[in-house]
Amino acid sequence: MIENPSIKSILYGGDYNPEQWPETIWHEDMRLLSLANINVVTLNVFSWASLQEDETTYHFEKLDRIMEIVKKNGLSVCLATSTAVHPAWMARKYPEVLRTEFNGMKRKFGSRHNSCPNSPIYRKYSVELARRLAERYKDYDNIIAWHISNEFGGECYCENCENAFREWLKNRYHTIDEVNRAWNTAFWGHTFYTFEDIVSPNLLSEHFDYDRTTYQPISLDYRRFMSDSLLTCYQEEAKAIRTITPNIPITTNLMGFYKLLDYHKWAKSMDFISWDNYPAYDNSPSSTAMAHDLMRGLKQGKPFALMEQTPSVTNWHPYNALKRPGQMRLLSYQAVAHGADTIMFFQMRRSIGACEKYHGAVIDHAGHENTRVFREVASLGQELRFLGDTLLGSRIQAKAAIIFDWDNWWSVDFSAGPSCLLKYYDIILHYYTAFHTQHIPVDIISVEDELCKYDVVIAPLLYMTKAGSDDKIRTFVKNGGTFMTTFFSGYVNENDLVITGGYPGRLRDILGIWVEEEDALIEGEENSFTYEGITYPARIICDLLHSEGAEILCSYEKDFYSGMPVITCNHFGKGLGYYMGTISDLSLTKTLLRKLCKEKQILPIINGPEHLEVSIRENVNGKFLFLLNHNSKEISISLPYHATELLSKQTYQVNDALILSGYAIKILKLL
Amino acid sequence: MIENPSIKSILYGGDYNPEQWPETIWHEDMRLLSLANINVVTLNVFSWASLQEDETTYHFEKLDRIMEIVKKNGLSVCLATSTAVHPAWMARKYPEVLRTEFNGMKRKFGSRHNSCPNSPIYRKYSVELARRLAERYKDYDNIIAWHISNEFGGECYCENCENAFREWLKNRYHTIDEVNRAWNTAFWGHTFYTFEDIVSPNLLSEHFDYDRTTYQPISLDYRRFMSDSLLTCYQEEAKAIRTITPNIPITTNLMGFYKLLDYHKWAKSMDFISWDNYPAYDNSPSSTAMAHDLMRGLKQGKPFALMEQTPSVTNWHPYNALKRPGQMRLLSYQAVAHGADTIMFFQMRRSIGACEKYHGAVIDHAGHENTRVFREVASLGQELRFLGDTLLGSRIQAKAAIIFDWDNWWSVDFSAGPSCLLKYYDIILHYYTAFHTQHIPVDIISVEDELCKYDVVIAPLLYMTKAGSDDKIRTFVKNGGTFMTTFFSGYVNENDLVITGGYPGRLRDILGIWVEEEDALIEGEENSFTYEGITYPARIICDLLHSEGAEILCSYEKDFYSGMPVITCNHFGKGLGYYMGTISDLSLTKTLLRKLCKEKQILPIINGPEHLEVSIRENVNGKFLFLLNHNSKEISISLPYHATELLSKQTYQVNDALILSGYAIKILKLL
Amino acid sequence: MIENPSIKSILYGGDYNPEQWPETIWHEDMRLLSLANINVVTLNVFSWASLQEDETTYHFEKLDRIMEIVKKNGLSVCLATSTAVHPAWMARKYPEVLRTEFNGMKRKFGSRHNSCPNSPIYRKYSVELARRLAERYKDYDNIIAWHISNEFGGECYCENCENAFREWLKNRYHTIDEVNRAWNTAFWGHTFYTFEDIVSPNLLSEHFDYDRTTYQPISLDYRRFMSDSLLTCYQEEAKAIRTITPNIPITTNLMGFYKLLDYHKWAKSMDFISWDNYPAYDNSPSSTAMAHDLMRGLKQGKPFALMEQTPSVTNWHPYNALKRPGQMRLLSYQAVAHGADTIMFFQMRRSIGACEKYHGAVIDHAGHENTRVFREVASLGQELRFLGDTLLGSRIQAKAAIIFDWDNWWSVDFSAGPSCLLKYYDIILHYYTAFHTQHIPVDIISVEDELCKYDVVIAPLLYMTKAGSDDKIRTFVKNGGTFMTTFFSGYVNENDLVITGGYPGRLRDILGIWVEEEDALIEGEENSFTYEGITYPARIICDLLHSEGAEILCSYEKDFYSGMPVITCNHFGKGLGYYMGTISDLSLTKTLLRKLCKEKQILPIINGPEHLEVSIRENVNGKFLFLLNHNSKEISISLPYHATELLSKQTYQVNDALILSGYAIKILKLL
Repeated sequence: MIENPSIKSILYGGDYNPEQWPETIWHEDMRLLSLANINVVTLNVFSWASLQEDETTYHFEKLDRIMEIVKKNGLSVCLATSTAVHPAWMARKYPEVLRTEFNGMKRKFGSRHNSCPNSPIYRKYSVELARRLAERYKDYDNIIAWHISNEFGGECYCENCENAFREWLKNRYHTIDEVNRAWNTAFWGHTFYTFEDIVSPNLLSEHFDYDRTTYQPISLDYRRFMSDSLLTCYQEEAKAIRTITPNIPITTNLMGFYKLLDYHKWAKSMDFISWDNYPAYDNSPSSTAMAHDLMRGLKQGKPFALMEQTPSVTNWHPYNALKRPGQMRLLSYQAVAHGADTIMFFQMRRSIGACEKYHGAVIDHAGHENTRVFREVASLGQELRFLGDTLLGSRIQAKAAIIFDWDNWWSVDFSAGPSCLLKYYDIILHYYTAFHTQHIPVDIISVEDELCKYDVVIAPLLYMTKAGSDDKIRTFVKNGGTFMTTFFSGYVNENDLVITGGYPGRLRDILGIWVEEEDALIEGEENSFTYEGITYPARIICDLLHSEGAEILCSYEKDFYSGMPVITCNHFGKGLGYYMGTISDLSLTKTLLRKLCKEKQILPIINGPEHLEVSIRENVNGKFLFLLNHNSKEISISLPYHATELLSKQTYQVNDALILSGYAIKILKLL
Repeated sequence: MIENPSIKSILYGGDYNPEQWPETIWHEDMRLLSLANINVVTLNVFSWASLQEDETTYHFEKLDRIMEIVKKNGLSVCLATSTAVHPAWMARKYPEVLRTEFNGMKRKFGSRHNSCPNSPIYRKYSVELARRLAERYKDYDNIIAWHISNEFGGECYCENCENAFREWLKNRYHTIDEVNRAWNTAFWGHTFYTFEDIVSPNLLSEHFDYDRTTYQPISLDYRRFMSDSLLTCYQEEAKAIRTITPNIPITTNLMGFYKLLDYHKWAKSMDFISWDNYPAYDNSPSSTAMAHDLMRGLKQGKPFALMEQTPSVTNWHPYNALKRPGQMRLLSYQAVAHGADTIMFFQMRRSIGACEKYHGAVIDHAGHENTRVFREVASLGQELRFLGDTLLGSRIQAKAAIIFDWDNWWSVDFSAGPSCLLKYYDIILHYYTAFHTQHIPVDIISVEDELCKYDVVIAPLLYMTKAGSDDKIRTFVKNGGTFMTTFFSGYVNENDLVITGGYPGRLRDILGIWVEEEDALIEGEENSFTYEGITYPARIICDLLHSEGAEILCSYEKDFYSGMPVITCNHFGKGLGYYMGTISDLSLTKTLLRKLCKEKQILPIINGPEHLEVSIRENVNGKFLFLLNHNSKEISISLPYHATELLSKQTYQVNDALILSGYAIKILKLL
Repeated sequence: MIENPSIKSILYGGDYNPEQWPETIWHEDMRLLSLANINVVTLNVFSWASLQEDETTYHFEKLDRIMEIVKKNGLSVCLATSTAVHPAWMARKYPEVLRTEFNGMKRKFGSRHNSCPNSPIYRKYSVELARRLAERYKDYDNIIAWHISNEFGGECYCENCENAFREWLKNRYHTIDEVNRAWNTAFWGHTFYTFEDIVSPNLLSEHFDYDRTTYQPISLDYRRFMSDSLLTCYQEEAKAIRTITPNIPITTNLMGFYKLLDYHKWAKSMDFISWDNYPAYDNSPSSTAMAHDLMRGLKQGKPFALMEQTPSVTNWHPYNALKRPGQMRLLSYQAVAHGADTIMFFQMRRSIGACEKYHGAVIDHAGHENTRVFREVASLGQELRFLGDTLLGSRIQAKAAIIFDWDNWWSVDFSAGPSCLLKYYDIILHYYTAFHTQHIPVDIISVEDELCKYDVVIAPLLYMTKAGSDDKIRTFVKNGGTFMTTFFSGYVNENDLVITGGYPGRLRDILGIWVEEEDALIEGEENSFTYEGITYPARIICDLLHSEGAEILCSYEKDFYSGMPVITCNHFGKGLGYYMGTISDLSLTKTLLRKLCKEKQILPIINGPEHLEVSIRENVNGKFLFLLNHNSKEISISLPYHATELLSKQTYQVNDALILSGYAIKILKLL
């Protein structure tokens, strides 16, 4: 990720907050971090209040001392700008820096994610602080990256934001007539005469619940605007820093499938992607893998940094189970297997007060190295050092891709109808899981990415067809690609206005079908269809569709639309356009995707159980096969490769038995 | 409904919003509406923003063109006043037009149901717009009705409303001492010294939840006041219009069992009743039938208009299943069977943006006539034309009635105790369903309606005994009527103050009982009793009652009140007063009501399964028996009448077999 | 409780609100109260509005007449100060007296619990009213107690409170640096430069839900501050009264395990404890018993008053079941069995309007004495008169105690992690129930109480170790006591800051263990362990602990920590320190506590079924054994005592069979 010639191995470390401790502890920390084989720390994440006392008085002395001790101990630094929480005095003197809630209430000082992104005061002082930090620490050659703010997120509905929204709209639509057209304001008498008529869409205006709005086009644009507003905060800090330290890469820690920010837009302003991975107790390995693949895809496959993970336990989930012995290592290598070149933790030393004191850390409240967690951290550090730069910069070559799009996420989840059970993320995960558990590598790409490098592209629930995206798909299929989409696709344009003339709109010719209606089944209700001799359920949504040239692969077996197609395949140019008109079991989706892939000679990397995770990374050093056992029970497979395991140096012949004990991993260099 | 000699058939049409479309589409629409056999459209429902640019500038040109094209194409018009959503400029310049939420937050522009009914500005401009519309279009002889605002509803808690509430109270109670007495303010130190002390009851004062209040009398009066406030909006627009077009009837579209408005009061100001019927996926045929009967009862049986229904699918319910083939026709005839003389849809052309774009329409997003839905609409239109005026003006003659009362609804649902499971609507539906599924016609009447035309009157959960209503019941029973009520009846007066001396208060002599206590059973708990040899459960509420002369029909079998009466029957004058002290299964209620009806020679119209719906309408053309199959499976019955089916012209002899396929209907003229 | 030589029997009565009724009713009330054997009434609870018309005008005439009639009829009076609801005029003229909600919204007049405790206006007029009442009625020798306000409770977040919070903090911490240290504000950049930077922690600042905060130390101090604020209101009224009537004891009615007020602090300002007992339909006898024991413990075992209970039915619970015949008597004697010397009801006459009109009363809406409830009340009154002063002043001698602490309650429930299922109250009840259902008397004590009078002290979930409390426990164990605590104990100091060095912190030496980690199991998940041959489940939390000298009683049997200790016992000085590392079934806890008690010669008072409640009170008149049957079915036991039953005068020999019918009670004087 961090293209820095001085980096010779996977970076290993995490957030370090010495400002929470007396200086006497710092030296003990240095000893412990060294024991743990840590080589990089993120500093200064939440220090604004202590760095700046008022509008003009700054105190960098403590940070100076921290930078010195860290440098002296040979640690690299990821230096944060500390702008994620404004100081209390700023909130008191300039209440405009505080956010306004979705319900219209003005916030007070407290918590985090509380700075209004469109506050001129917040912008001024946050950029100034970033500039001063860059100026002060620019000569530290152990700074390997800038870390702007922290986990950007949330929303604001204050007057500053409302005014900024109007400006954003002027910039996008130029005239109020164009706004009226783009938002279809003739509906429910919403015609605006001036931009001043427009208010932010929240519980006091268009929304009757967080995700339920009476005016989708307005709510959708506000989401875009708010993502852009926070992005501008990032960009302005980055600009101030880049002027001073043009050679130090800049990032911020993203959060995987975080709904409120369009990371595809954000990625363009980031030098590399970094993100925080905190799977909950009920997340599947596939859901974590998918998040890694999304992050990797943000910069078209470039290696990324795992900026945060817990070494042992989270504390904010409803249930905070311990990572089992080996599981932290497993999840670390899972990140590497999906493209990470950096493994970092939150955090080095467990804090003693406030809401994250029961979040795991390398150094526990016990304060010493004699803990299970510390031993596991140190042991992984040793392995990473042993691996050196072997894997650095390696890439994943996927021939299949899933299209994911934030605008589409927002639009589908804002939709009034057809069913409360229809959630974009769930459908994306369903399709991803079908690839992942069959050991077929897949990229998660945006609607703007090139399709021509793939053989199979799946766009589940591609509800919104943005300008040009249908043409891109059309060209892809014409040239021989296999494309597949589902029910509730092709319905609307960029502003959530229906593309009239028959669903799925601009995708209709590619798919050779017309969707006349869609039925919504209540929870528990099912239709059925038979595919390749097996009968599957149809749930939640059942399209009533007509073939307009597409081959019908199977049909409904019940209700008044019995006999109508469920799955179709259209020959279009040299390629195929598949369509799936309902939601079925994962087993059906796996069968279907296996068929599509096989038709394009895309085969699983390996055969093995679902909880065996597999990936291949390649660089000038070779091809590296990752095998990860997400189960506590042993897995035994017959290896179809000649390979040497990097950590044990053991060599395997083709068809040799390979055993992975519970939570174990292997990295095989293919020979 | 609309008594207009020029109307020669059931009106058929619905909401048409050409202002959402380019004018080029209008001509295509005319072709399609004609193909669909549509003869009436509702225009101008949400156009205020485009009709009025500022305080003084109006733009009627587009509406002029719409009125012309519609007229030229032979369509009748139901002309709306467009005042359901104020324009954005008005909200910006006069924030007082915006409502304040139940939680005390001032709203901003957006959504609908957002105009404060007590805003002088809103009143002034809404009435002025209505006046101008009447003046401008008064000479269009194809206007068959005025449609004021749209689906009046919601509440406001702003200062204007608070002040208006005080005025409303002065008008009702005259002195603050009388308020204190009527509200029993000695409780919890609520004594008021002046009207200015009184605030609106909401989450910031008396309520701790929407339906949970610490001061029922205040909350009850605020409900009344708010219903009256919205009614005044209706009345003021109606008055302005009536001055100009005294011969065009005026209505607004009601919403069935809509809790917040006392439609019994509203009906007095409406020339005819119209309403919008949108059953949810889990509504029974009985619940829809009951809503129709409520609407018919608002004007003592006068035919009403079905102002809106979806031709195919709703979009705002959690699950939006398609109406099955034949089901839209079935539900249309269900309205007719219960007294509708007009069948209308929301809407003609499916909109492309905002929250109702997935609500069904006659003309779908596909834009042409080749859809299942269009064909079904056109086909029904043809049938209605074929029926002509045969059914117009016909009435239903029910000898049984259920009393329903909004004040009672509010009071029961506001009640603190005895059980959270006690909901007035559910109990009313329970009793209605017992009649409906046994094919016994029933009217839904108000406490003000005459009882003497009925033989059996059921008043389930008549918690509130308004002044005079006990006397009306007393007279009814004395003269030979059969009256029945239940647990938690007769407890309070108009202000929810308990009538002391023993429950059920003023009904005690009629029923010949005294209810000493009532027990509340938690969900799942049951007592039992045996009636006519069958043992039934007693749930939720079990009255501990004593006979004071009433015959005891059955008694509890468990717990410490084992042996106390459950159901009693009192001979009072020439009639009978029945009392039911608990909630049991529907089968018990059916048995009981069948007995009561049989005693008064009220017999089912027909014998048949529960999902066969039956009704008879009569006019000068004859008696018409409606048979509706709400199931997807065929029904076969033996017809006890000599009759001719109106649509097929087939004649049946007495005891002929009659078959109704799934969702089928028949209208038989009895010979 | 009320140490007054003129009191010769258990006081019996309750709230009487004649001001809600015309004076003609008062005389009938006197007749009925006498019939019911009532000898004390609580007057003037909610009369502020009628007593004071404006800033300077008071009207005591009606209260004078009430005091006279009550006195003339020989009733004692518990005189309330009426300050629980401010008058409406005060809210209108001085909005500062109104509270601000947790969500930041300013309240309006209405409901109760609505006076801001830090409003100078509220303070001024409430104290003035108390003073005037004392002055006016000081010569009534039938006033046996003052009752300040009513059920103090709730919170306020207004500016007055925010400023008062800052003063409270200055008083507690003196400097802002000390606040920063005590709150660990280095976390998340919360450093404060001045006290003015601090805002109240609510939904607009630190909280994202009522019990979920991002800054535990701030939220914790606000809870303390708010409890203190309300206490100051109590103290100021008490002070004004005490000056005038120094010999009349002063109390206020507490509410058992009421979370928001630290009653251990409150008790110090109260002359005797009184409380309101309203068990819900799903409360166990143990939970009510535990509340009585908590109340008794507030003043180290001194008898208390049951200030309110319903004679028949509540009305605000979701389900309001009737108290079965005998159950009101049973619950009354349960109070006596746990230390009550007074039995009172809410209320004498059932009100007719607002939210408590369906709350049970001695005199029902029927208005006469011929009701089941009246008869049961009168009969109990007769019994109490018969008992005379036999039981007055008797004490309970428990050798086991459970430590309960409000600060700990707040901290545990505020904790972010480890599990959403961890609730302090539930764990306390679990341990209490294990004692109670085994008929072992137990005191509920505070962390400040002396331990030396006990042999066994259980401190379940003693998460917070306050300064000195570990030393008190250390001394107790050293001297031979048996102490036991559980998982998640000893973690933090008074400000919820972790005590570093290894859990359970300062308790580690006493227990001889080190808790390295704790695992959180999701609902339904279980580990297991075997104790005394029986296998038990381990749920919710499983400590991963190491013995540092403690004996290991049993170990986990599953997962990676299989073999690690679950329950340990440490020999420390002359005593034992037990530790329980998980949550298991009640049967395990019963077994364990039985063992601990047996080791210290603490035996059950009696053997009998779980629903047989048992206690012993002692005074100069003797030892009195209470036997209470909480089941509707008969219980038969063999009595291990020679005794005479007080009510029946029946004498039992040792091992005589004793039968208790459903809901029956017996009071046996041990011979």
